Amino acid sequence: MSGTGLFVSFEGIDGVGKTTQVERLRAYLTEAGRSVVVTREPGGTPLGTAIRQLLLSNAADSAPVSPRAEAMLYAADRAQHAHDVIRPALEAGSVVLTDRYVDSSIAYQSAGRQLSEDDILMLSMWATENLMPARTYLLDMDPSASHARLTGAPDRLESEPDSFQERTRAGFLARAAAEPQRFRVVDASQSIDDVWNAIRADIDMVLS
Amino acid sequence: MSGTGLFVSFEGIDGVGKTTQVERLRAYLTEAGRSVVVTREPGGTPLGTAIRQLLLSNAADSAPVSPRAEAMLYAADRAQHAHDVIRPALEAGSVVLTDRYVDSSIAYQSAGRQLSEDDILMLSMWATENLMPARTYLLDMDPSASHARLTGAPDRLESEPDSFQERTRAGFLARAAAEPQRFRVVDASQSIDDVWNAIRADIDMVLS
Repeated sequence: MSGTGLFVSFEGIDGVGKTTQVERLRAYLTEAGRSVVVTREPGGTPLGTAIRQLLLSNAADSAPVSPRAEAMLYAADRAQHAHDVIRPALEAGSVVLTDRYVDSSIAYQSAGRQLSEDDILMLSMWATENLMPARTYLLDMDPSASHARLTGAPDRLESEPDSFQERTRAGFLARAAAEPQRFRVVDASQSIDDVWNAIRADIDMVLS
Repeated sequence: MSGTGLFVSFEGIDGVGKTTQVERLRAYLTEAGRSVVVTREPGGTPLGTAIRQLLLSNAADSAPVSPRAEAMLYAADRAQHAHDVIRPALEAGSVVLTDRYVDSSIAYQSAGRQLSEDDILMLSMWATENLMPARTYLLDMDPSASHARLTGAPDRLESEPDSFQERTRAGFLARAAAEPQRFRVVDASQSIDDVWNAIRADIDMVLS
């Protein structure tokens, strides 16, 4: 958190409904008269969009991105995102809702890619000059259930086997356990309305 | 240095003749029967080329890359470069000649962009798993002299004012002073032949 705004992140594996819940929260806070900025990673800036294309492209003729290069690219995206979008919006008093932030890097890269959690956290903290969310909603669901929700052609991350998603889910849950004051874990296997009711009750408390 | 190869970097501000001297050394070592791999940063891999386009593009409509995002992008390029090109070539016994490496990041970003030298070094060491050259040739010249050698349209770095190049030159010289065993500083205001003779005499000693 920074300035007079409020910084909120949504985390969780693919297919758990983050986009839907971000939109519900955006509409709710806007209705309540708050200025709301909705953003995402990777891709929250033009630079980030270009980085996202590098990272998610599934072109058969390109060499795989090495784990450390991948970590650095996510950190570069985050550095620009914090610098150009999140920090200015918070300083202007807005609520910033981001679809993924530092916990995704840690969960996907350390749980999935065998890089150290401490290293990934260090890169993100350096990239953002220590900008962390005040509240993080972890939408938690069994990967086999979330997988069924996905549509369209798989990108490189989505095409990983389920054991990767299971390690990633465990990585998110470990993050939540390590920072219980920042995290709220929401059972994303509930109905969309029930997930939203849990988030709404919490955000009302945060803002009161 | 790693494996049985030899890792050599060329450093210095734009226009000091690095490309010419890399080519002379490549020809000399090849003639002597060594396997030589010539590479560069940014852009030593397909991923690096894409990153180079992001970093050096001078498009008027793009937001400036923030200093920390820039540092992370250079580090990502270096991670992939070390992983895909430099380390495999060294392990195969080749001499690797790179036009720019970690010292450029430190000189340009810390001297030029006001980031900490320790931080930039830490990012590079993490990115490369501590892969450093055995020998670094710093081609040193007054920026006003090197500027006159440049041709073609300036890119973003080259269009910085001379005070930037002067701070960068000082950054390189400080690096050389800090690691005298790795660095050889060559007066690049000499003729091309005289610069080459200095490098040849040194590499003969290194390889003997």
